[in-house]
Amino acid sequence: MAGNSFGQLFQVTTFGESHGTALGVVVDGCPPGMALSVREIQRELDRRRPGQSRVTTPRQEPDQVEILSGVFEGKTLGTPIALLIKNRDAAPGAYDRLRDRFRPGHADLTYFLKYGHRDHRGGGRASGRETAGRVAAGAIARKLLSRFGVRIVAGTVQIGKVRAARFDSRAIEKNLVRCPDAKVAPRMIALVERARKQGDSVGGVVEVRVEGAPAGLGEPVFGKLDADLAAALMSIGGVKGVEIGDGFAAASRLGSENADPISYRRGKFFTRHNRGGGILGGISTGEGIICRIAIKPTSSIALSQKTVTEAGKPVTIQVQGRHDPCLCPRIAPVAEAMVALVLADHLLRLRGQVGTIRRSK
Amino acid sequence: MAGNSFGQLFQVTTFGESHGTALGVVVDGCPPGMALSVREIQRELDRRRPGQSRVTTPRQEPDQVEILSGVFEGKTLGTPIALLIKNRDAAPGAYDRLRDRFRPGHADLTYFLKYGHRDHRGGGRASGRETAGRVAAGAIARKLLSRFGVRIVAGTVQIGKVRAARFDSRAIEKNLVRCPDAKVAPRMIALVERARKQGDSVGGVVEVRVEGAPAGLGEPVFGKLDADLAAALMSIGGVKGVEIGDGFAAASRLGSENADPISYRRGKFFTRHNRGGGILGGISTGEGIICRIAIKPTSSIALSQKTVTEAGKPVTIQVQGRHDPCLCPRIAPVAEAMVALVLADHLLRLRGQVGTIRRSK
Amino acid sequence: MAGNSFGQLFQVTTFGESHGTALGVVVDGCPPGMALSVREIQRELDRRRPGQSRVTTPRQEPDQVEILSGVFEGKTLGTPIALLIKNRDAAPGAYDRLRDRFRPGHADLTYFLKYGHRDHRGGGRASGRETAGRVAAGAIARKLLSRFGVRIVAGTVQIGKVRAARFDSRAIEKNLVRCPDAKVAPRMIALVERARKQGDSVGGVVEVRVEGAPAGLGEPVFGKLDADLAAALMSIGGVKGVEIGDGFAAASRLGSENADPISYRRGKFFTRHNRGGGILGGISTGEGIICRIAIKPTSSIALSQKTVTEAGKPVTIQVQGRHDPCLCPRIAPVAEAMVALVLADHLLRLRGQVGTIRRSK
Amino acid sequence: MAGNSFGQLFQVTTFGESHGTALGVVVDGCPPGMALSVREIQRELDRRRPGQSRVTTPRQEPDQVEILSGVFEGKTLGTPIALLIKNRDAAPGAYDRLRDRFRPGHADLTYFLKYGHRDHRGGGRASGRETAGRVAAGAIARKLLSRFGVRIVAGTVQIGKVRAARFDSRAIEKNLVRCPDAKVAPRMIALVERARKQGDSVGGVVEVRVEGAPAGLGEPVFGKLDADLAAALMSIGGVKGVEIGDGFAAASRLGSENADPISYRRGKFFTRHNRGGGILGGISTGEGIICRIAIKPTSSIALSQKTVTEAGKPVTIQVQGRHDPCLCPRIAPVAEAMVALVLADHLLRLRGQVGTIRRSK
Repeated sequence: MAGNSFGQLFQVTTFGESHGTALGVVVDGCPPGMALSVREIQRELDRRRPGQSRVTTPRQEPDQVEILSGVFEGKTLGTPIALLIKNRDAAPGAYDRLRDRFRPGHADLTYFLKYGHRDHRGGGRASGRETAGRVAAGAIARKLLSRFGVRIVAGTVQIGKVRAARFDSRAIEKNLVRCPDAKVAPRMIALVERARKQGDSVGGVVEVRVEGAPAGLGEPVFGKLDADLAAALMSIGGVKGVEIGDGFAAASRLGSENADPISYRRGKFFTRHNRGGGILGGISTGEGIICRIAIKPTSSIALSQKTVTEAGKPVTIQVQGRHDPCLCPRIAPVAEAMVALVLADHLLRLRGQVGTIRRSK
Repeated sequence: MAGNSFGQLFQVTTFGESHGTALGVVVDGCPPGMALSVREIQRELDRRRPGQSRVTTPRQEPDQVEILSGVFEGKTLGTPIALLIKNRDAAPGAYDRLRDRFRPGHADLTYFLKYGHRDHRGGGRASGRETAGRVAAGAIARKLLSRFGVRIVAGTVQIGKVRAARFDSRAIEKNLVRCPDAKVAPRMIALVERARKQGDSVGGVVEVRVEGAPAGLGEPVFGKLDADLAAALMSIGGVKGVEIGDGFAAASRLGSENADPISYRRGKFFTRHNRGGGILGGISTGEGIICRIAIKPTSSIALSQKTVTEAGKPVTIQVQGRHDPCLCPRIAPVAEAMVALVLADHLLRLRGQVGTIRRSK
Repeated sequence: MAGNSFGQLFQVTTFGESHGTALGVVVDGCPPGMALSVREIQRELDRRRPGQSRVTTPRQEPDQVEILSGVFEGKTLGTPIALLIKNRDAAPGAYDRLRDRFRPGHADLTYFLKYGHRDHRGGGRASGRETAGRVAAGAIARKLLSRFGVRIVAGTVQIGKVRAARFDSRAIEKNLVRCPDAKVAPRMIALVERARKQGDSVGGVVEVRVEGAPAGLGEPVFGKLDADLAAALMSIGGVKGVEIGDGFAAASRLGSENADPISYRRGKFFTRHNRGGGILGGISTGEGIICRIAIKPTSSIALSQKTVTEAGKPVTIQVQGRHDPCLCPRIAPVAEAMVALVLADHLLRLRGQVGTIRRSK
Repeated sequence: MAGNSFGQLFQVTTFGESHGTALGVVVDGCPPGMALSVREIQRELDRRRPGQSRVTTPRQEPDQVEILSGVFEGKTLGTPIALLIKNRDAAPGAYDRLRDRFRPGHADLTYFLKYGHRDHRGGGRASGRETAGRVAAGAIARKLLSRFGVRIVAGTVQIGKVRAARFDSRAIEKNLVRCPDAKVAPRMIALVERARKQGDSVGGVVEVRVEGAPAGLGEPVFGKLDADLAAALMSIGGVKGVEIGDGFAAASRLGSENADPISYRRGKFFTRHNRGGGILGGISTGEGIICRIAIKPTSSIALSQKTVTEAGKPVTIQVQGRHDPCLCPRIAPVAEAMVALVLADHLLRLRGQVGTIRRSK
């Protein structure tokens, strides 16, 4: 499978450059007969959209999505669903001065090294703008998952050194940084604003939680659910780390401290602490799934940085494009989308592979 | 692709249960004409082998590998290379008492929930023993990579709360815990021994470093090199987190602190701090690749733990099998193998896709 | 990989229903730096376009293609190339009477059985119109192949019982049925016209020939070049058989009659008769590749046919849409496109997998 | 996916050279809890086994299969099932004289051109012996399919110019050439014996019939059931053509002659003539599936043939190995196996993708 596709039974293929004609995605494998409207997809896109607040980039993109195929009379056909998002506020001229030089921390250098010919405008294919297609596809995956009672929510649990102390899903959409801790949110916002004013940026951590996922998602030994989640989340630009359940914290513990007894109530199995984040041996337990991603501070900052041109000549640049001072609030819906894509795919695979013998007599 | 296969042009498929007849792997896509001997594969297996020292499981498995196909007169044919490792010291009887109950922290519960019918002996397919096949395949990938000047080494940089202060590759094979810091190694060993004596276990962190990887490995946007590395490493049993380059540390920084200027010397581009771990925008820069994995303490401990039976009845178990008090030293070669598989696959893809236009006139 | 994608390193994903908003395709894996213009793609689409002559459907579709991504300043970027073709002359009303009934020989019945909910208008996703996306993608594959000296041409070698006696590539575009035998073409045209006037249709055979393909394309044992060609060609609507080289004729021969001695001249190997159609053991020999496809007569005929409704009620229908009396002339460019997609993919895989050892020292 | 793997949810990977240590296959994706014994697999292998009669090769191979993994206490685990078949009667010495020369009609030339280094003994990986792994895997697929009421049978319907006039499944295993027409079988046998005595060989056609396959197998537009069947069957060595349903016969018909009205009885839909061979628009109708393959005469004949050495020097060879005078009787079980692999895979995919919405409320 080529690099711009993801998933096996629920497969998405995205396309588009940041300042090109359009972005889009083809979703192949969504089961037929599911009600689906432009509005449902637009709602998710609006959560990722730039220009939402003073803590995000001022680029104005309506990110209006069109459904080109795969839906007939309001319901999915089982055929590929193509979604198109035209670029409106492309400002390619802003990048003219960057044409032959590499912004540090960006993919400019590596696209040059790999492809030779590159679209230098706003990162081209490597721009965060590419995630619009992921979010649009994720909206379809989420709709599918909701039919099975699966809900996904992501919140910013850390910005810089400020950490959330609790995870209250209802708080997330009520503050600008999507923090699940209403008390801590104002401090996070202040931190982001300070960075923005100084032409600086700041990193953070986003946590994704899934409720209602059935047991049995994931396969041995390479097709593990946590392996697929790690790939899906690490594929988001700016993400430098992924952990599942207790993650890196478990590395410094003794086995006796990390123990997690199993119990049983009303037809379901439970672990006491859910240290595995809803996954044991790469397969879901039926408990809540929990993962976290480390997000680096936006590399595009207004402060001057040393770099070189394609010819290797040293230069100093100051990135003048419009950028997010902190990626977390806008990455949260992208992370939800990626988790949704993984779960939708594994859900269909689970239904296909396992239990068929038992279902047949 | 099914759950037990990995890679596209360099594809591996592993099989085998911990206490079944045999483990093995099929490697499809290794280029033809490469010298390959049993000895080279055995050398890597010996590094992963159980029973090596007082800090690893006492299970005695010679892990003798046989080449069944794909090699003729000492050289690869370009056809699938099948490798077989027979189980010798299987002690299935030791697991009789665990037949209907779930060891906490293991895949016993999830295999039961997913498959219904399961091989309860030592975790069956979910056993760490499965990684022998990965290491055998990895030995072939490493041989291939060495032809292109790529070298991979992994070391234990943390056990419990003890951390290495430096990464000296030459130190790694000289101490029992594979620590790249000769001074810190004795404290790590003492910590593992204490845990073992108390019937306890301890977690840690392994770092993998790659030298000599060419620029250009990785594809946009889902086929990123770091996404594939994350999946490969997270698929190892016991791994709960993956980070690339500065990883989670970057999350608490300002953009100005995280800046990483680019320079150019003698035909190559460099970043000052290599904060990206040799990867920018999902594509290798040609610098050293660095990743780290968080490993939980072995879940099998001699201390008694609460759990339930398949029927949901509460019981107390004490796992009596033979286990590693700390997984790090034996996971290090597995992590090297997984990184080798990812790089070999991307290397072949790179040669196929890119530059073909330039190579043709 | 989902059902609407094809290829591994050179991957295409098509979408769109016959009377929906648009058709399109995403091509992922085309190497960077290749000059590519809308005009080159349009030229191939124009060859497949309906309404070309009195022997094809009168539906008027300009099939104007737009490039949405993957091309910058006239050259490919190595990122996905998305192509869009809007439907203009959709006449969905013409299908209102067919809403709940199945046209014999079409996919109406099976889409109903599989998906429940279906787009009944002109076959929806199963319409021959879907092949516009294939031809657009094929144009890119052909451009890539042309850089390596590979040329593909398809001609109608049989309509009804009228057969071409020779294969002259230059004759093909000079007659309405794309027959490579200028002498036989008029008889074929007369046959198609007679069928059209009687509201009938007629089947035929199209032969595809490839010149300049290198030796070594194809892999053992499932990834054989002829296996991939068979799948690619059989996936075209209306195709009921595929043969390679001498095909079914070989089945009635003795081994001594079918013998095909090998010789060598000026650095190349040759078979005397090329009975294998340029392929031995699933791998290309470097000779001309030859395959043929059997195409059934268009199932949509103006004559009344017995069928049933979704509820199983017997009815008589007369298909009034606009249809081709013979599919061959318009399938020829589609067959070329499919062969191009297979060859482009295998060419990239060949460059990736084989010879890497020899190229390294 | 690499060239030696096949299938998506039900994936097989085969390995092994004709005169190497062993042949084998890994089956990944077989649902858990299915009773499976060595005996069931051996039974199918025995049908393909060489040395069965005077119309097949005298090479004596017991083809004893071992199950290495994936089965526990007589039932499948849902984990990979590895099967091993050791080579016993390897006679590599017989091939010494062929070491540097190409047998016409074989893959010797193309493996040399592609891989450089090759196993010349009996065709190595390209030998018909490779199909033992396919048949072993097919036995598992057939067992799975039988749980859903799907039965597959293949018969030799043509040898040379002698054709069967009827298809009586019960006749097939009662004659040496597996002809479904008991009256015609003796003439076919006589033809094969005559060829064998003259050191010659003869081609033929094998037809595969499937009963009990559900409607809905297959996907638009590249994942069509007939496309996958065509690839699967064309991948068998010696096969030069594939047709579905009426196949090439339809090419010479008018639409009115080829019409196939649909009717409905007792909850099922039927076509009058099943001209589509149980497939419409690439998706199964629920009727019997019918396909046919053209098989060339064995290229290894005792008559002397002209060829060249690797250095291009003209030589005359007489192939002295042990070969089948007609491939049909032994290809029949291989064709059944390949069809079983395709159907098992599509069956699991169907259960995964479609109807999930309807099954959820």
